[in-house]
Amino acid sequence: MSGASGKQIKKVVLAYSGGLDTSVILKWLQETYQCEVVTFTADLGQGEELEPARKKAELLGIKPENIFIDDLREEFVRDFVFPMFRANTLYEGTYLLGTSIARPLIAKRQIEIANQVGADAVAHGATGKGNDQVRFELGYYALRPDIKIIAPWREWDLNSRTRLIDYAEKNQIPIAKDKRGEAPYSTDANLLHISYEGKALEDPWVEPFEDMYTRSVAPEKAPDTPTYVEVEFKRGDAVAIDGKALSPAALLTELNRLGGENGIGRLDLVENRYVGMKSRGVYETPGGTILLAAHRAMESITLDRGAGHLKDELMPRYAELIYCGYWFSPERLALQALIDQTQETVNGVVRLKLFKGNVTVVGRKSPNSLYRMDYVTFEEDSVYNQKDAEGFIKLNALRLRLGAMARAKV
Amino acid sequence: MSGASGKQIKKVVLAYSGGLDTSVILKWLQETYQCEVVTFTADLGQGEELEPARKKAELLGIKPENIFIDDLREEFVRDFVFPMFRANTLYEGTYLLGTSIARPLIAKRQIEIANQVGADAVAHGATGKGNDQVRFELGYYALRPDIKIIAPWREWDLNSRTRLIDYAEKNQIPIAKDKRGEAPYSTDANLLHISYEGKALEDPWVEPFEDMYTRSVAPEKAPDTPTYVEVEFKRGDAVAIDGKALSPAALLTELNRLGGENGIGRLDLVENRYVGMKSRGVYETPGGTILLAAHRAMESITLDRGAGHLKDELMPRYAELIYCGYWFSPERLALQALIDQTQETVNGVVRLKLFKGNVTVVGRKSPNSLYRMDYVTFEEDSVYNQKDAEGFIKLNALRLRLGAMARAKV
Amino acid sequence: MSGASGKQIKKVVLAYSGGLDTSVILKWLQETYQCEVVTFTADLGQGEELEPARKKAELLGIKPENIFIDDLREEFVRDFVFPMFRANTLYEGTYLLGTSIARPLIAKRQIEIANQVGADAVAHGATGKGNDQVRFELGYYALRPDIKIIAPWREWDLNSRTRLIDYAEKNQIPIAKDKRGEAPYSTDANLLHISYEGKALEDPWVEPFEDMYTRSVAPEKAPDTPTYVEVEFKRGDAVAIDGKALSPAALLTELNRLGGENGIGRLDLVENRYVGMKSRGVYETPGGTILLAAHRAMESITLDRGAGHLKDELMPRYAELIYCGYWFSPERLALQALIDQTQETVNGVVRLKLFKGNVTVVGRKSPNSLYRMDYVTFEEDSVYNQKDAEGFIKLNALRLRLGAMARAKV
Amino acid sequence: MSGASGKQIKKVVLAYSGGLDTSVILKWLQETYQCEVVTFTADLGQGEELEPARKKAELLGIKPENIFIDDLREEFVRDFVFPMFRANTLYEGTYLLGTSIARPLIAKRQIEIANQVGADAVAHGATGKGNDQVRFELGYYALRPDIKIIAPWREWDLNSRTRLIDYAEKNQIPIAKDKRGEAPYSTDANLLHISYEGKALEDPWVEPFEDMYTRSVAPEKAPDTPTYVEVEFKRGDAVAIDGKALSPAALLTELNRLGGENGIGRLDLVENRYVGMKSRGVYETPGGTILLAAHRAMESITLDRGAGHLKDELMPRYAELIYCGYWFSPERLALQALIDQTQETVNGVVRLKLFKGNVTVVGRKSPNSLYRMDYVTFEEDSVYNQKDAEGFIKLNALRLRLGAMARAKV
Repeated sequence: MSGASGKQIKKVVLAYSGGLDTSVILKWLQETYQCEVVTFTADLGQGEELEPARKKAELLGIKPENIFIDDLREEFVRDFVFPMFRANTLYEGTYLLGTSIARPLIAKRQIEIANQVGADAVAHGATGKGNDQVRFELGYYALRPDIKIIAPWREWDLNSRTRLIDYAEKNQIPIAKDKRGEAPYSTDANLLHISYEGKALEDPWVEPFEDMYTRSVAPEKAPDTPTYVEVEFKRGDAVAIDGKALSPAALLTELNRLGGENGIGRLDLVENRYVGMKSRGVYETPGGTILLAAHRAMESITLDRGAGHLKDELMPRYAELIYCGYWFSPERLALQALIDQTQETVNGVVRLKLFKGNVTVVGRKSPNSLYRMDYVTFEEDSVYNQKDAEGFIKLNALRLRLGAMARAKV
Repeated sequence: MSGASGKQIKKVVLAYSGGLDTSVILKWLQETYQCEVVTFTADLGQGEELEPARKKAELLGIKPENIFIDDLREEFVRDFVFPMFRANTLYEGTYLLGTSIARPLIAKRQIEIANQVGADAVAHGATGKGNDQVRFELGYYALRPDIKIIAPWREWDLNSRTRLIDYAEKNQIPIAKDKRGEAPYSTDANLLHISYEGKALEDPWVEPFEDMYTRSVAPEKAPDTPTYVEVEFKRGDAVAIDGKALSPAALLTELNRLGGENGIGRLDLVENRYVGMKSRGVYETPGGTILLAAHRAMESITLDRGAGHLKDELMPRYAELIYCGYWFSPERLALQALIDQTQETVNGVVRLKLFKGNVTVVGRKSPNSLYRMDYVTFEEDSVYNQKDAEGFIKLNALRLRLGAMARAKV
Repeated sequence: MSGASGKQIKKVVLAYSGGLDTSVILKWLQETYQCEVVTFTADLGQGEELEPARKKAELLGIKPENIFIDDLREEFVRDFVFPMFRANTLYEGTYLLGTSIARPLIAKRQIEIANQVGADAVAHGATGKGNDQVRFELGYYALRPDIKIIAPWREWDLNSRTRLIDYAEKNQIPIAKDKRGEAPYSTDANLLHISYEGKALEDPWVEPFEDMYTRSVAPEKAPDTPTYVEVEFKRGDAVAIDGKALSPAALLTELNRLGGENGIGRLDLVENRYVGMKSRGVYETPGGTILLAAHRAMESITLDRGAGHLKDELMPRYAELIYCGYWFSPERLALQALIDQTQETVNGVVRLKLFKGNVTVVGRKSPNSLYRMDYVTFEEDSVYNQKDAEGFIKLNALRLRLGAMARAKV
Repeated sequence: MSGASGKQIKKVVLAYSGGLDTSVILKWLQETYQCEVVTFTADLGQGEELEPARKKAELLGIKPENIFIDDLREEFVRDFVFPMFRANTLYEGTYLLGTSIARPLIAKRQIEIANQVGADAVAHGATGKGNDQVRFELGYYALRPDIKIIAPWREWDLNSRTRLIDYAEKNQIPIAKDKRGEAPYSTDANLLHISYEGKALEDPWVEPFEDMYTRSVAPEKAPDTPTYVEVEFKRGDAVAIDGKALSPAALLTELNRLGGENGIGRLDLVENRYVGMKSRGVYETPGGTILLAAHRAMESITLDRGAGHLKDELMPRYAELIYCGYWFSPERLALQALIDQTQETVNGVVRLKLFKGNVTVVGRKSPNSLYRMDYVTFEEDSVYNQKDAEGFIKLNALRLRLGAMARAKV
């Protein structure tokens, strides 16, 4: 049937959290498009029970075979988080892209389900002002170019809290007590991070209040003695902690525990959204913050300078692509090929000290180490001839000298 | 006269610290080249008295008019450190380039003195295995292409500690008691940082020992309550702390005090030297660490996304140029023109929380702010039409869709 | 009054060519928005009389004080074409951006007129599928953020030739005889180039027919003897031809004559539009093709390698910005600062041979030349010590050797 | 035994052309190092008989088992030229790297032979002022880090023509009549190109004389009617001409014939050598010039915009790496991984017109084409909604508008 946008929809796969907003969307889709709704709820490590989402979907009339609940945690870390960390990725120098990196996986799974159940449309609960709508929809289109997309927040007239609540009440959608009032900020969570933005955080001059944080203690309350941890890498990916091999998701979970206990990974920043405005975000990424430091340190002794500097120069572009939703684009794949090509020798162990918010690298070792004590020592050496440096400098200086001579002449 | 290298030298300007090594060099230059030696000692904020250097030079027979002692602290911060921080410069993702950025200033002043006193040569005390020889000599050549350069460590046969001490004793060069033995590491210091490398630090698996550090307390020993500080920027440069205007050097000195007291700015890394090997360095950059966080935060609300991302992509290259000694190269100047062009609106105040090693941005405000609450708010808005996002996404997705269609067809 | 888009418009400045399409737009604006229309017609060297446009505007009821006709040729070449050529700009390796570079000037002048006459809107005749709408509108918004924009081709229902002609006939808009039928392609022209696209050119496997071209003879019909020409540069801009100083527009006009007579500057390509699809374009850029070759050759002896390679790496980004309409963006301005900073020494004369489509550089000389015969000669030399090369190579090879040793060990 | 450099050498593999210079080197190696010499002569398509080199080596006392003569033409084109052309590689915007790309293959084969015969050293005939010494030696070191390298031109005292001839005469080395006098320029040739440099070409203001060229007729003397040719690509590599499948070397040979007959591929430029000075080079690359145009055109309809622009931005860096001898570096390999990843869909046929020096693309078609007539047509369309462009532009303009508003406010 045809909705607000004039689209004809038969069956739609909705990214469904089970929360108030997506429950309202579910109902609104049924009403507006008179179409069959399939719900998809993913466990990406956000730390919420998923079974209530099933119950709620059933309550809203979704047939059992149209309810999809998937544990995607291992796929998330293995195929999305880890590849991204191979590049030491930071958006705008600071943000670890915790939200951005989860969106393409949701989009991918949603399209897979759409293909499986023969749906002609997908829907999501992201607003028209943010990055997530772009990330979802670029993913949908890249994976299924003829898909129809419904973004209720851009279509409907329920854009105020009051109207949303009204709609829920009118339609017998259960409203959790604490959802009636305006939340002081909105959040997004997965195994890599939790984000906070909006409302109480909108003034970038005002410090976030302490009781907002959920994944880390404040540095002030972290233990008074440091925790030492060793992270082992194979081909650029973390594979073990303190000698114990762990699956990707288990490893990140453990790093989150270690980071969270030691007050690590809080970040308060103003970022540039792809849709054109600046916004303030506060993030907790305890495990990711440790992983980034560890990976860079692992590379510091195993990666060639030329390859490393090339990666560093391309990283901001790569980060921008992920931030803006281009995970499935040809240029992200090309950059990934470059990045992955460099990681074969990124093997070894990094030792870190965690203490009240600080992650300090204190040791690194590798069977593929390019670091050679015999080359750096101040002692007399056979391997390196200091006299070579003169020629090195003189030829590197030649163009500068010719430039200076030309300037002097004119 | 002609020395080991066969060069004929009449008058040489030596970068002279007054320490044992450069005193031996001074003597060796006189002996080997039979030439007049001019000493140049600079105060870059290394935290040492300079008058003893004068005394020592006199003792070694340098004529008073050939002894140059200059306080370059303001020039250092204003014309070297600050321009570099406008780019949020980090070498290999972590190193703040404290040593690298001081070398071109020393080279520049040394050439100025050479021109003034009619010298035909310059000399420095950097070894043949490090970056500093390159930084000095590229600077010399770029500023005076016909200069003769003497790098004693690459020429002489005093490459072991024993021989150096022997030479000093034979030539009545005073040796401080603590210099007889082998130092456990070597250091370089200026107003931006102090570095430690070599010997005891050569095994990158071994954590540096606590009593090595001189500019910061350990995070463990820093105060239990945070310090809040406000840094004001004008055109990308810090100009005031907590509302008090300070000269560049005074400002950095104050940030060093604040950072040092709060355990901020320690860094332990393995870096890629320009001459080809990896080396382990440990650094303390208390004020610089604060300044970097503050400048990025200032840009976060005042700098356009396009300009900011361009800067981020070029930063690694810019950092590499500084690290490798190309401060006076045409490409560094061109990049600086780009960087400086973006800083006109980087004005305002950043508020930071300093606590046991952590620098956390907690507020930013600016008369040039591009951050607009009315654009990011979740409330209904007049300024932004959410429906525009659909077209934005659809056109950005078009090439991805065409790609998917083409793949499906084949 | 309010039009199709619901916008309320009082006075609109229309980019008006005097042709059928923009005449229909003029009428449609009056009818649809019931607003005062101001016409702006620019001479950018497209090679058409402008006075007929005035007549036609008057005929359509535009008040004399609302008719603006400006000769912008000098400004176009001096402030847009020349800055772009300083970067040796090519989009996708081949296209000289002849259309792209004219749009920001039109947008700029249109906004100036809007400000002057107190208009609240601007309108243009570009379609909703092309790049030009983006270039115009990004320019408008960057220069006057509150401007209202009317893009009739995206709003109206006259999207077929038949309906357009019908509308013209109903409204007494004169239709040139040759405009009744469908044109076999559309064109855009200015002093830098003329473009052809659409319809007869839509199949990229079919060669364009010879009688389409208007600015150049076919190479086959060009003179059988070459023409030699000398182009002089000052600070990166061409200033004289064969020793005769010429204004920017006069110089480009003369290069167009020389190029056109010698069959130079035709280009047939498929390009990626900013709006997401590929399109086929055929271009004639006779003078620009010569200018590009000449400028590169001028730089080849006057520009430092480091600066030159940096420019080369940034050029594709710079070209993309211009192609996509970001002339007035902060990042284009930043790149321009970098580019311009390198051009101070780009002075001298380049000698070129023009022959049947070929532009061949055959000589270059400069007072700022960095080319030194005494350095390149195979003869024995005093200036360059061949032995220096060994050290240069050995230190550059060091990391490669360490890499090979590490691989051998594992 | 120990030579001029103090190196002890047992067996050395010499890159031996059979010409005067490398024959003198052969003798000089025997005399100076008293070592066994192994000669290696490669057919890279330089167009010379190789058997005379064998004869000459035997005459100079080389044992038959120490004479290696290899036809490397297919490997050269398949594994070096074609991968490079996948990137549309041009050094400094114009040079097709014909010499640069051959050096790593020679180095590779020389090290393979050294390993096979148990040699401890390699030698080459490149001078100490050029790029080739760097390319050879970086290759040697990357493939065998402990190799000893002899570069006679940097070691001996035969640096003038007279002394070289004298040495040849004293040692009964046959001297071709035309080699007694000074050649007016030096050349390097292989299947991709021939280069000319030095002596008569040293003044960059003087046009090269016509009778120097050997691979192409002058455009003036090329046929008066154009030649049309179709080049087919598979995964980015040319595989057939006019429908006829050809091996890599056969294909390039045929393109050389076509280009040479039509006066295509001459280039006269001043380039920046890696060792620091500028030098003038003249090149003939007939087939390569056609191949470059064809490959770009093939990509123009098969390569995604994002991937294509990324490649364009990285190409100058990639070209610089090849020019400077870093073929075997980790960063070249990483870039190659990126480039190759994009070529899977670069399949199809390009049609070109060759005429008196011009290569004009006149058609392109592909089973993987991303070009869609239904998307670009001016006709009404169902696939593309012109109204989407408004949102696209408005969101892209948002940051520019916010910037303008902020500027207006201050």
